Amino acid sequence: MMTITKDGQPVYDITLADSFHALSDFLGVYDPSGQKKYGIVSDSKVASFYLDAIFSIVSEHTKNVIKFVFHEGEENKKLETVEQLYTTLIENRFNRNDCLIALGGGVTGDLTGFAAATFLRGIDFIQVPTSLLAAVDSSIGGKTGVDFSAYKNMVGAFHMPKFVLINTACMETLDKRQFVSGMGEVVKSALIKDKAFFEWLLDNREAVDKRDKDALSYMITASDLVKKNVVETDPYETKGERALLNFGHTLGHALEKYMDFSFMHGECVLIGSLFATELSCRKGLLSREDADRVIQYIQTFPLPEIPKDADVEKIVSYTRNDKKAAADGVRFILLSEIGNAVISRDVTEEDMCNVFHDYLK
Amino acid sequence: MMTITKDGQPVYDITLADSFHALSDFLGVYDPSGQKKYGIVSDSKVASFYLDAIFSIVSEHTKNVIKFVFHEGEENKKLETVEQLYTTLIENRFNRNDCLIALGGGVTGDLTGFAAATFLRGIDFIQVPTSLLAAVDSSIGGKTGVDFSAYKNMVGAFHMPKFVLINTACMETLDKRQFVSGMGEVVKSALIKDKAFFEWLLDNREAVDKRDKDALSYMITASDLVKKNVVETDPYETKGERALLNFGHTLGHALEKYMDFSFMHGECVLIGSLFATELSCRKGLLSREDADRVIQYIQTFPLPEIPKDADVEKIVSYTRNDKKAAADGVRFILLSEIGNAVISRDVTEEDMCNVFHDYLK
Repeated sequence: MMTITKDGQPVYDITLADSFHALSDFLGVYDPSGQKKYGIVSDSKVASFYLDAIFSIVSEHTKNVIKFVFHEGEENKKLETVEQLYTTLIENRFNRNDCLIALGGGVTGDLTGFAAATFLRGIDFIQVPTSLLAAVDSSIGGKTGVDFSAYKNMVGAFHMPKFVLINTACMETLDKRQFVSGMGEVVKSALIKDKAFFEWLLDNREAVDKRDKDALSYMITASDLVKKNVVETDPYETKGERALLNFGHTLGHALEKYMDFSFMHGECVLIGSLFATELSCRKGLLSREDADRVIQYIQTFPLPEIPKDADVEKIVSYTRNDKKAAADGVRFILLSEIGNAVISRDVTEEDMCNVFHDYLK
Repeated sequence: MMTITKDGQPVYDITLADSFHALSDFLGVYDPSGQKKYGIVSDSKVASFYLDAIFSIVSEHTKNVIKFVFHEGEENKKLETVEQLYTTLIENRFNRNDCLIALGGGVTGDLTGFAAATFLRGIDFIQVPTSLLAAVDSSIGGKTGVDFSAYKNMVGAFHMPKFVLINTACMETLDKRQFVSGMGEVVKSALIKDKAFFEWLLDNREAVDKRDKDALSYMITASDLVKKNVVETDPYETKGERALLNFGHTLGHALEKYMDFSFMHGECVLIGSLFATELSCRKGLLSREDADRVIQYIQTFPLPEIPKDADVEKIVSYTRNDKKAAADGVRFILLSEIGNAVISRDVTEEDMCNVFHDYLK
């Protein structure tokens, strides 16, 4: 277990276990008299795996529990789905004391968190991430939101969960692509903050691929510790530190958009991390040797193939749309060494195009 | 000028003046190099009075200023209008460093604040309230939101403005009903926290009615000081103190809803305050003499007439829907004396019906 703090005060706990049972323990402390209502939010796919189990645990605690299931897919991470959830909450007379439970991947967590942030000006919510990507990234740090008008996460809020429960057993049911996508954020975490963790990833490649329970547990904990330290230093992305989490994301987001989201987020982060590593070397920050170690490791993952005739200039132009772009130009995250990321304003669009073209050769 | 603080730290200033000129001074400090974009949000009615003046002041500071005008009326305080505003901001490439300016009454301030709270997970906004109601209530305290599915402020967020500029000259153009509506929150502020201010209101009735500039200035400042002290003690409505601002609102909201919003908010607050004062007396908290002084004062305002055949039981049943209702029953705000409000759980629906029926006799 680890605790996320703000200004030195505990805000919420993250519990890692191999079952959902810890939810019951949390509810016993959070709502001892069982007076709150709970709304479990899940997409159609995750619901078929885990909704009954969670419903049953919450039902043992209180009779006031409802389900809200929406159709799976990033295309449903939109205001219309949030509005349907609001309507369900109104019909069931939810008030400010009640609580949502996000059961699922990043789409479910982001959407549920945004509904919780805005229903009655904010109610509690609990994150139960079932994907690796959500477990190591989106469920932690309080970023919530939905897509709007073809822009990802254009509308959202910072709203901290009350509790995060990661059940490592869920990671076993992920398909290969989803798992690799999660690895994108894992690798990023190691690269930006934790050299020893990166070495561990190299040494434990086989155990991770087999989804060995202990290996997953270590890997998720190490990733979450990186995220914890960053978000505690910069909870609202105002100080620069949180920008480091954007390593691999500037070109990753642009590629994701160019491919019309047919590539998964973490796949694009892996490719973006590869480019950012190469750029770190070309800008004289990272040794050729270290850059090659990172690039070779990333290339062992089954990355989706970028069309040879991709319009690189167009992809790079999308980096201008990045909502994290500062008024004075794109902040590009580079590595000064493995395990240490820095903010650079020296990376031009030409630099980005060059590294992209070389990759496609 | 007064400053709203949180945990002892200054958060934003409220400036009271008889022109918009102070906006220019604020911008000079807030954005000295004029690099931000500004979006002025206004409804069609207020825009016709003041939009050019504000546009001109901001344009002197920067060339990056746009207007967003929506059709006036509470019925447009909805997510669709916010979505139109998001689209305008996207088209004009607003990013996290940019700023909205809410020019108007409560509808504009609440809607603009909510858009600012949620666009890119939060951008800055400035409140320029042009109605008395907004100047003494909705522009201060960081509550933002829109109506949803016939429920008022069902969707929203706490998001503090960067600056509040109250131009008392705007109060001169308000029609009589709007002005009286604003007085609802003024009277409430005096009753819950400031006996001397209530006495001032009795003594200065004529100057207020004439909208004498000095009287308005004193009255708005005194009201805002009450609100400042309450929201500083309880910024997120979690500690009870902020509930005191709900004096007159439990029955006021219910009446507003029953009359399908044909009565104005502050008119309903005046009537609700009258009922809450009478209930304070019947519950043995307030002397008959004090209750009568308050009730007689409220009755000097031109209150809208409630139909004699109003379904009182139905109106009272609406108090159950109040989103501020705690899990353990309606918290009703009463006066223990003029200038001191308390939270009561002793007021039953029967009590409310009785006071309502007696008023209609």
